[in-house]
Amino acid sequence: MSVQSERTTVKRLPQRGHYDREVIDAILDEAVVCHVGTIEDGLPMVIPTLHARDGDDLLLHGSVASRMLRTARTQEVCVTVTLIDGFVLARTAFHHSVNYRSVVIVGRPEPVPEDDKGRALDVLVDRLVPGRMADLRPNTDTELRSTAVLRLPITEASAKVRAGQPIDDDEDYARPLWAGVLPITTSYGPPIADPAMAEHLAEEPPVPDYLVDYRRP
Amino acid sequence: MSVQSERTTVKRLPQRGHYDREVIDAILDEAVVCHVGTIEDGLPMVIPTLHARDGDDLLLHGSVASRMLRTARTQEVCVTVTLIDGFVLARTAFHHSVNYRSVVIVGRPEPVPEDDKGRALDVLVDRLVPGRMADLRPNTDTELRSTAVLRLPITEASAKVRAGQPIDDDEDYARPLWAGVLPITTSYGPPIADPAMAEHLAEEPPVPDYLVDYRRP
Repeated sequence: MSVQSERTTVKRLPQRGHYDREVIDAILDEAVVCHVGTIEDGLPMVIPTLHARDGDDLLLHGSVASRMLRTARTQEVCVTVTLIDGFVLARTAFHHSVNYRSVVIVGRPEPVPEDDKGRALDVLVDRLVPGRMADLRPNTDTELRSTAVLRLPITEASAKVRAGQPIDDDEDYARPLWAGVLPITTSYGPPIADPAMAEHLAEEPPVPDYLVDYRRP
Repeated sequence: MSVQSERTTVKRLPQRGHYDREVIDAILDEAVVCHVGTIEDGLPMVIPTLHARDGDDLLLHGSVASRMLRTARTQEVCVTVTLIDGFVLARTAFHHSVNYRSVVIVGRPEPVPEDDKGRALDVLVDRLVPGRMADLRPNTDTELRSTAVLRLPITEASAKVRAGQPIDDDEDYARPLWAGVLPITTSYGPPIADPAMAEHLAEEPPVPDYLVDYRRP
């Protein structure tokens, strides 16, 4: 199997400029979680967390109690986002692969300043579920103090993309064997109502429009 | 939003024994890729790669040209696997969350010995697409030499799971707002045939049974 195959396109900023940022941004915006790599006590640590792109920055979310977020803001980190699009069934085991899109960003994150944290949290919620923030009360000061948001500039970033059909060795194409791609898709819904609504509300609010036919960008 | 929330269950080996391994193994077996954290030139690096559980070991796959795999076999690494099961829409931004299952394994991977590499590659292909290996010719010596497989024992491992409905503060349950979970599901197929079959074969082989209604374990 070849994941880092010859079909991989490496796009590295800033050499490729605008186009690369479009590819990178699309991957960041579609993915729900990222994996943050840090060094703790001399050893690598990889923790999943929610992210949201905020223009030219990646916001990383967590509790103020999160060791990862406390560690991350004192050092250079590596943030990786991966989307898996399909299995690539080639004519030999060796050329089996997966179609995927991934982004790697390295840099030194900084805490979002207190006076911008409310807005940053709004961005995080609205990137997860666009429209949701408008339905919610503002965060309290206590809630804001309990939440940490880091901001990582999307400056040193690269994307890798593998798409399309298998690439086999010439002599293997004559093998009478099904070859192709098994697509992988992510779907959302239908929404499952919290039974606690029935206990606390005289009438159950309708499912919000933003959850009907929800799709990632 | 709270990802590392109070609903998180941390299971750590070896304290919790058998039950934990069942949880950990189920997450490892369902996920298609893992994220491998290493230290390169003093900086953290996180790279996605294919994995497969082989009993009590995690197999990590890559090209012999993969810098990550060359780095990984000389040091302690952190391998993280994450499945996202749903968005948790609470009554406040603060309690928004995601349902997820993740596993972190740390340890020092070793290269799979040459005389076991063929079998290890079979495991990798068959964990991706069970049944596929039986249709394929054996790997050639050249193919085996071009592929690196690392083996990481699943000894120092932990799982985190967040499931179920939002947990809000008592005073917020009276808010007339829809709350619940938007499930996230991954689906596979339908298969897309490689057009190259039509060019090279008199008759296109049928879609294999193992791709019809494909599901992860």
